[in-house]
Amino acid sequence: MTAGPGLVALLTDFGTRDWYVAAVKGVIASRAPRVRFVDITHEIPPQDVVAGAFTLAAALPWLPPGTVVVAVVDPGVGTGRAVLAAQADGRFLVGPDNGLLGLALARANRRRVVRLTKPRYWLPEIGRTFHGRDIMAPVAAYLARGGALRRLGPPHRATPLALPPVVQRGRIVAGRVIHIDAFGNLITNLKAQRWLPAGSAARSARLACRHRTAPVVSSYAEGGPRQLVAVAGALGLMELAVRNGSAARLLGARRGDAVTLRRTSS
Amino acid sequence: MTAGPGLVALLTDFGTRDWYVAAVKGVIASRAPRVRFVDITHEIPPQDVVAGAFTLAAALPWLPPGTVVVAVVDPGVGTGRAVLAAQADGRFLVGPDNGLLGLALARANRRRVVRLTKPRYWLPEIGRTFHGRDIMAPVAAYLARGGALRRLGPPHRATPLALPPVVQRGRIVAGRVIHIDAFGNLITNLKAQRWLPAGSAARSARLACRHRTAPVVSSYAEGGPRQLVAVAGALGLMELAVRNGSAARLLGARRGDAVTLRRTSS
Amino acid sequence: MTAGPGLVALLTDFGTRDWYVAAVKGVIASRAPRVRFVDITHEIPPQDVVAGAFTLAAALPWLPPGTVVVAVVDPGVGTGRAVLAAQADGRFLVGPDNGLLGLALARANRRRVVRLTKPRYWLPEIGRTFHGRDIMAPVAAYLARGGALRRLGPPHRATPLALPPVVQRGRIVAGRVIHIDAFGNLITNLKAQRWLPAGSAARSARLACRHRTAPVVSSYAEGGPRQLVAVAGALGLMELAVRNGSAARLLGARRGDAVTLRRTSS
Repeated sequence: MTAGPGLVALLTDFGTRDWYVAAVKGVIASRAPRVRFVDITHEIPPQDVVAGAFTLAAALPWLPPGTVVVAVVDPGVGTGRAVLAAQADGRFLVGPDNGLLGLALARANRRRVVRLTKPRYWLPEIGRTFHGRDIMAPVAAYLARGGALRRLGPPHRATPLALPPVVQRGRIVAGRVIHIDAFGNLITNLKAQRWLPAGSAARSARLACRHRTAPVVSSYAEGGPRQLVAVAGALGLMELAVRNGSAARLLGARRGDAVTLRRTSS
Repeated sequence: MTAGPGLVALLTDFGTRDWYVAAVKGVIASRAPRVRFVDITHEIPPQDVVAGAFTLAAALPWLPPGTVVVAVVDPGVGTGRAVLAAQADGRFLVGPDNGLLGLALARANRRRVVRLTKPRYWLPEIGRTFHGRDIMAPVAAYLARGGALRRLGPPHRATPLALPPVVQRGRIVAGRVIHIDAFGNLITNLKAQRWLPAGSAARSARLACRHRTAPVVSSYAEGGPRQLVAVAGALGLMELAVRNGSAARLLGARRGDAVTLRRTSS
Repeated sequence: MTAGPGLVALLTDFGTRDWYVAAVKGVIASRAPRVRFVDITHEIPPQDVVAGAFTLAAALPWLPPGTVVVAVVDPGVGTGRAVLAAQADGRFLVGPDNGLLGLALARANRRRVVRLTKPRYWLPEIGRTFHGRDIMAPVAAYLARGGALRRLGPPHRATPLALPPVVQRGRIVAGRVIHIDAFGNLITNLKAQRWLPAGSAARSARLACRHRTAPVVSSYAEGGPRQLVAVAGALGLMELAVRNGSAARLLGARRGDAVTLRRTSS
């Protein structure tokens, strides 16, 4: 099981209305003609490094080993912030050193990070506003063609991404909404396996947000048609969801909102 | 004319903001490294099986024989609803048994449907909320690599999709808006060939919706710049359209609205 | 550096909710099975030929030589407007003759344009509303497989795209906002190299729009966190931008708004 003739995945805040994504892909395809592209998303909210880091970390384990991911959410473009290339459990990452790669790197069992310092691997002319095209795209093409990470620059310690902490007080666990997905599901920083190990205890646990309380169920469909329920989502994180509806709309919730898990036995 | 080294097309209600589509593609690419992807759409309104079925049936005949389509609009995920794989006029379909595949199957001349019952073709661990990734993606990879449909499970009769009926009373034919496209065109369930066979009769026919009446013309451009007209759309279905404008906005129309075709000779 | 086994890029106003893009890709993949697709965008505002022309011209130089671009923003579909195929600096373009290709052709050093007149290269049946699928897609497949442009029809002079003029009065240069990108940056028709050649003069120049005036800086990051600045963007055109914000929202600006560049020495 390998990635075949070079898979390059992209995650940006460029949107899909403009020519920016095509320029990045064009530079890569010019230098690695057999590569194939997978768009993770280009709709990270502009300059929202946390949302980008979350989405990247969630997608990465499902991409084939050998995949090169170009991640560009880069408010500091044109400043002195470093640009990185990394290897994480057999996949490659290219992106700015602003925490965007931090969550994916933290979850990896094996990782290696270098700072990009060798202009010979970049485009001949580097603009100030578009390092995704001028630096990251040619480096991604180099890696997709089997180039060696260590040639791109010296080892580097990547900036980590800070997530809000989880606080436990007896049977109460306090966390936060860290992401709201396309269905309006509220994804929290509470790991289901850590806070709700399998067994009857989970059955009567309840998760609250914005003065609404939801039973913990084992699938969306266990809830009634418009009922708020808490489930362990595909990522292993507790999320609040409404079957055939939007938990975000029902609760008027936003990212960062507090959530409280109340367990019947601790 | 074959699909080349494996074409996989995707139709979902996942949206494009999140990592879900990439996870499905990553699982497929991990198991069928040479596959190429075509996104039909990921913007089916959440859990809107009718819109998904319509869009799938419209796209399918244009995809090369051998294409594998993964279709996921699946409000019943985690319940007992079956998951299907099918062959329809040389293309393959993988999706839930909730009517989503029904329209495409009904239009096919040759079809074969099986219910997915063999976990050996799925991911080793099956979550409760993401069968698109855990069951449908590996099955699609298997089919894209030339695997045999019949091995995936026993024959099955797929749930059909119910569309609103067309009612004829003399020269009046009553139908419904079944889809509103990105241009605001109102697509109806009235087949042009059935209700307006070629000839002078069509020339003076009129199609009404929400108290507005439109002449039947043979191209958008026959209408004035802001005129409401009725045309036979690319699918062979009558649609209401405004040149350089949106019929949906002009009429305040919604899916399900009644339309009335008045023919001058029956 | 070649495009490998056929790269086809698409730019349309079809949106991504519907089956239209998949139909175009399906026709191409049926006739050129090894082709790979790059979406430039499908979110050109409906029938907005200027936005399409701008985006196409901006993307084109970054796509590998040999790439075939299908561009469909086509309010005149079904009328007598011509459909064109062209070669521009080694890339191919297929689209309607309404100015959409004009900006890309004007920027090319070498160009050749033909009018599509040979139905043998099209689908057997040509509808009136979807020439992107019925004419342009099969022609793109023919070119992607190495077909000869001159066989498709006779030479043609493409309709140019008219952009608003730049007017200079002494140290004042008056232009317009011609595009607003996904970040809310306001892109103008003022070429940085023409109006602000490198040197100290640029340092004290100022660009105004809607009664707000911005200093000309050399990168987004030179501005304060919410400061309006003017920079030479990735295209070499002056643009107004707000770091970590939207210049379009700050100014309430729209495409077509007047901008005024005031230089301290002319």
